[in-house]
Amino acid sequence: MSHRLSQLMEPQSIALIGASTNAGRIGGMPLELLQHFGYKGAVYPINPKYEEVFGNKCYPDIESLPAAPDLVVLAIAAADVTSMLKRCHAKGAGAAIVYASGFAEAGDEGAKLQEELRAFGEESGMLIAGPNCMGFANLNLNAFTAFASVFKAVPPQTEKGRVGIVTQSGNVCSAVFALIRRLGIPVSHFINTGNESNLEFSEYVQYLAQDPETSCVVSYVEQLRDGGRFIDAALEMAKEKKPLIIFKAGETEKGSEAVRSHTSALAGNLTLYKAAFEQLNVIRATDFAQMADLAYLSGFRNRKGGRRIGIVTISGALGAILADKMLGATLDVPTFSDELQRELGAGIPDYGMVSNPVDVTGNIVNSPEFVRTVFTALGTSPELDAVVVYAPGYLLDRMADEMAEASRKYGRLFVAIDTGSSKCREQLEAAGVPLFTDIGRFSQAFAPYSLWLDRQPGVARWAALRKQITAAPAKDLDDPLMNEFDTKRLLEGFGLVSVTEKFAPDAEHAVAAAEQIGYPVVLKILSADIAHKTEVGGVKLNIGDAGALRKACAEISESVTRLAPKARIDGFLVQAMATKGIAELIVGTTQDPIFGPSLTVGLGGVLTEIYKDASHRLLPIDSSMAREMLMELKSWPLLDGFRGRPKADVEAASKALTSLSSAGLAHRSQLQEIEINPLQVFAAGSGASALDALAIPTTLET
Amino acid sequence: MSHRLSQLMEPQSIALIGASTNAGRIGGMPLELLQHFGYKGAVYPINPKYEEVFGNKCYPDIESLPAAPDLVVLAIAAADVTSMLKRCHAKGAGAAIVYASGFAEAGDEGAKLQEELRAFGEESGMLIAGPNCMGFANLNLNAFTAFASVFKAVPPQTEKGRVGIVTQSGNVCSAVFALIRRLGIPVSHFINTGNESNLEFSEYVQYLAQDPETSCVVSYVEQLRDGGRFIDAALEMAKEKKPLIIFKAGETEKGSEAVRSHTSALAGNLTLYKAAFEQLNVIRATDFAQMADLAYLSGFRNRKGGRRIGIVTISGALGAILADKMLGATLDVPTFSDELQRELGAGIPDYGMVSNPVDVTGNIVNSPEFVRTVFTALGTSPELDAVVVYAPGYLLDRMADEMAEASRKYGRLFVAIDTGSSKCREQLEAAGVPLFTDIGRFSQAFAPYSLWLDRQPGVARWAALRKQITAAPAKDLDDPLMNEFDTKRLLEGFGLVSVTEKFAPDAEHAVAAAEQIGYPVVLKILSADIAHKTEVGGVKLNIGDAGALRKACAEISESVTRLAPKARIDGFLVQAMATKGIAELIVGTTQDPIFGPSLTVGLGGVLTEIYKDASHRLLPIDSSMAREMLMELKSWPLLDGFRGRPKADVEAASKALTSLSSAGLAHRSQLQEIEINPLQVFAAGSGASALDALAIPTTLET
Repeated sequence: MSHRLSQLMEPQSIALIGASTNAGRIGGMPLELLQHFGYKGAVYPINPKYEEVFGNKCYPDIESLPAAPDLVVLAIAAADVTSMLKRCHAKGAGAAIVYASGFAEAGDEGAKLQEELRAFGEESGMLIAGPNCMGFANLNLNAFTAFASVFKAVPPQTEKGRVGIVTQSGNVCSAVFALIRRLGIPVSHFINTGNESNLEFSEYVQYLAQDPETSCVVSYVEQLRDGGRFIDAALEMAKEKKPLIIFKAGETEKGSEAVRSHTSALAGNLTLYKAAFEQLNVIRATDFAQMADLAYLSGFRNRKGGRRIGIVTISGALGAILADKMLGATLDVPTFSDELQRELGAGIPDYGMVSNPVDVTGNIVNSPEFVRTVFTALGTSPELDAVVVYAPGYLLDRMADEMAEASRKYGRLFVAIDTGSSKCREQLEAAGVPLFTDIGRFSQAFAPYSLWLDRQPGVARWAALRKQITAAPAKDLDDPLMNEFDTKRLLEGFGLVSVTEKFAPDAEHAVAAAEQIGYPVVLKILSADIAHKTEVGGVKLNIGDAGALRKACAEISESVTRLAPKARIDGFLVQAMATKGIAELIVGTTQDPIFGPSLTVGLGGVLTEIYKDASHRLLPIDSSMAREMLMELKSWPLLDGFRGRPKADVEAASKALTSLSSAGLAHRSQLQEIEINPLQVFAAGSGASALDALAIPTTLET
Repeated sequence: MSHRLSQLMEPQSIALIGASTNAGRIGGMPLELLQHFGYKGAVYPINPKYEEVFGNKCYPDIESLPAAPDLVVLAIAAADVTSMLKRCHAKGAGAAIVYASGFAEAGDEGAKLQEELRAFGEESGMLIAGPNCMGFANLNLNAFTAFASVFKAVPPQTEKGRVGIVTQSGNVCSAVFALIRRLGIPVSHFINTGNESNLEFSEYVQYLAQDPETSCVVSYVEQLRDGGRFIDAALEMAKEKKPLIIFKAGETEKGSEAVRSHTSALAGNLTLYKAAFEQLNVIRATDFAQMADLAYLSGFRNRKGGRRIGIVTISGALGAILADKMLGATLDVPTFSDELQRELGAGIPDYGMVSNPVDVTGNIVNSPEFVRTVFTALGTSPELDAVVVYAPGYLLDRMADEMAEASRKYGRLFVAIDTGSSKCREQLEAAGVPLFTDIGRFSQAFAPYSLWLDRQPGVARWAALRKQITAAPAKDLDDPLMNEFDTKRLLEGFGLVSVTEKFAPDAEHAVAAAEQIGYPVVLKILSADIAHKTEVGGVKLNIGDAGALRKACAEISESVTRLAPKARIDGFLVQAMATKGIAELIVGTTQDPIFGPSLTVGLGGVLTEIYKDASHRLLPIDSSMAREMLMELKSWPLLDGFRGRPKADVEAASKALTSLSSAGLAHRSQLQEIEINPLQVFAAGSGASALDALAIPTTLET
């Protein structure tokens, strides 16, 4: 595999500066691991104190090595790192791992050291991992460069590793590695990225997306330092159908505070993180055991699955519990058609159930023919995507042959759960059937995994859309500081419909405009310097005639002059008084500091803010994504004819969202935000129109 | 222990009808278990086919026994059960367990059999457990009467059992028992209640509340058949400070459907279940492993804890993760005072943290004095209730002495988490420190357990309030079918304030009334038969003068006569036109079929319905509970001065809730519902008033 990171990730030779003969010290532990696990490449301990360290000749300094090493590991103090790296680079080393703490996480002095390090890496092209990291392990090459005692504390790995672990915390890397290994799942890479001065999280993920041996990436993230590359990495993982599983710390303000003071990372806007993860089909984990279980499931990714789950149990109670869990995790447990129910019902006693959950009852274990009928029906029916089977102990064993057969024959994902002591694990796993022993852990892993399967086509479509649209260059505005009128005209160019309105330099022009529009009208002050017009008395509604309009012009002018004396005034805006719609939305684009251009939509008004009811996407979006955004609002029923009300023009609203998406993308370099508040949405067929719009130039960002 | 259920739960002698010599059959398995575990009482197998079964003399029939058995176990078919029970009762047996299925869960025929069984139990006074159950086990007496293979599949129990398991499903009973035993926790009772024809769930819980050996009850419930007794049972558990842990199935419609067709149980209104559980300090579990972990924690219930958690880790990442988990579960992770931070900061390196989470970093394990300082500070500070310590493997071992010492000295709950392989479990547990090995499982159990500790004073207060208020007898109304005017007058008797209004038999009286009240007024039709006045054109708002009022009377009369021709009309109601308040609430009492009188409050209007924002309580409530109900609404900020708005008169609103609570309780036998919609709440100090009220008599319940 030839990738920029190959020298770091697949080193043919490793030098360790600060070598120790003590396996309990950070300069000794990796060398002992390399010896213990039988690394095949050259190992060069470096320390003037020793002749030999863990079976390898020890050198007094980097310059004395017989050849340039692929990778140097620095087990030396922060202050000495950059000067030492320069010597390593001079010797011809291509990659380095820096253990030392005392960089950006440790105050101003450390930040300065890290900046030096970063600058040297950038200028030299040397691949620098860390600093403040625990190191790496490529388990398929036995290339251990981490000072982690966990490698010898878990069962040795006999199969080829297939799970890549990438974390920003060393402790988490060890904890997750241990859990995965204790499940018997072979790991390909152990990567603790540390402070990421030069190489950041997403680049490792990109490497693993291309690594043919890695089938999934399990990771822990406090902050993404390169959102654009992260999007690329996630899409590359999606393209390869490898699950990217991320535990994101800083879910709460307190957690985020703890993260900040821990690694000087910003935890970021979690709301957008969540939306982006979903859009990129990244599986968001919230627990270490769940991460391990997801890694386990990824070993069965050749099975077809999805969100419609058939449940088979020998217990009505367990059927109910599993249905609750699946539905609670937003999966479907569809009620089967009469036809399918008849097919299943043939061999089930009266007190069983066939509608889904299917309760075959304990009695049927004596009739393998009937078990085969059930699994054939559920393995082939177009009414479901995957089958979950709960049976404790010997009851599962009695069904194992038929389940394995159906799994092999139909390619559909079957998953077994046993809270007893069945003996069929190997048989089932060999047939592509994962087996869980805990209902909670099963649900926590199976639900997001099924959603991941379900979302694959969506992320592929978005990847194509993104490629097409981001190919168009950003456009330049003469002046990004625009008043409401100019902002709306700009948006009209992208297809957005606004309320009927006219610009009027003064009161007399306003009267003329109002006559053309027709009374009643709305009058607004027009100024690029005034973002919140109401606050300075710059808006008058429901003006009925010319006299009232002249009076309104005078009052607005007076008030604005008094309350916003420095604002440059462009004149007035005269608008048709909007009739009441079905709903008022607030829609806006933002250039997110991590993910770049994004769009948010919510129902306008104070209650929506209280209920935090909004939907987010990375741009671009197309109209079907816009519709999805509206449909995922909790307040969607209001747009959809709640309790006999008229339905809203969702098509027009979606079109407004896509127009705004195009505008936000085209002007991403100059406009930090574009907001429409409100977007008045009328009854179906009657359109939607922007009553107000606001553009905030990037230069004004605070 | 002398309790009504003693003969069933602590039998001195056990007869089994339908005995088998085959330990794999239901008539054999319990007999084999009794022999295997060495039950000390008399065992009487009954089956004319055998002379001896598992070491005990076998009898041909119940009549041949040398003495009356305490308990008979019936391993015979449903159709023969009641007649056999009559013979057992004649022999003098006091209690019975019925295994057979084929009762209420199996259609009409079975329901008839169950009714016969129930009637016999009621009339004879015999204690009948089941039917359709797996049986029991009193593990402290080795009295096994269950056909469950799990008892021999788990580690044998050496300590005295202390966890009672009560479930409505046999499979769940076995699964949970296995999990608890695999954690090494000793079980006192294994109780599978089955169809509960005569003895229902709550009575078993009451028995266990009084059982001195049982320290917690772990249970699975599909339906509560006696809500009143359940409340008693939960309060008895609370009084004994024994956690009552319940997994309630049927969380979703589908799950509830599965439960229904499984045991003919109604899953019930989950929203009220949740509220009632919280009010009664019942721990609602959602997972079997969580139930086992809660049982584990209950072994440490002599430790003081609560919702304010101090977190100590050797890793910033783990600190952030734990803070996220605790806050996500509604616990607090308070930022420590400067003083406490200084105390903690003395020995922590620069890159550590002291604000909470406390990151002592891996470096400090070499300084036991500092560890002692941290645990002393956190064990004694009034700023927190409990301490969570994360450290993997040997790092935890290095802190174990100091943690054990602090736990012993200060009585505060310390909990340790180790994802590695520490060796200090026994030492910590002996000192009252539970140890978890999985962060997810820790959080899932520790959070509800801490809330349980926190809610103890609240449930004690409510128990006292309930005793006092329910002592008052229900009142009788002359006629529970009341119009709005009469309903409001009734509520006024309980202290509820209504909008100013007058009854008017006709238009001329209405005009006179309006003059006294002052225009503008509201006019409503007055009829006990019309629940929704607006739908029949029975309401006119904002009437400005006598002419308009007369016209309104005529229009309303015409419309109502046409749209509700059968309604008995009492006349008109003239109301002052209410000024706009801060918020409009909807408040109502309901006689819940399971829990009895309850109260619901929510913000009025369509969005609240969409966001499902309501708060529920079992009655009675006092004013502090009323305030809590308002504060737990998501829309509480609207009442509390959101974004500079005026605050609402929360005191007046709370008073309205308690008035309604009193009315709902006093008339619980005659009024199914009393609803105020809206309750207009004005700015602080300006009161709250009922604009409309509706009472639904119990007899009209549909």
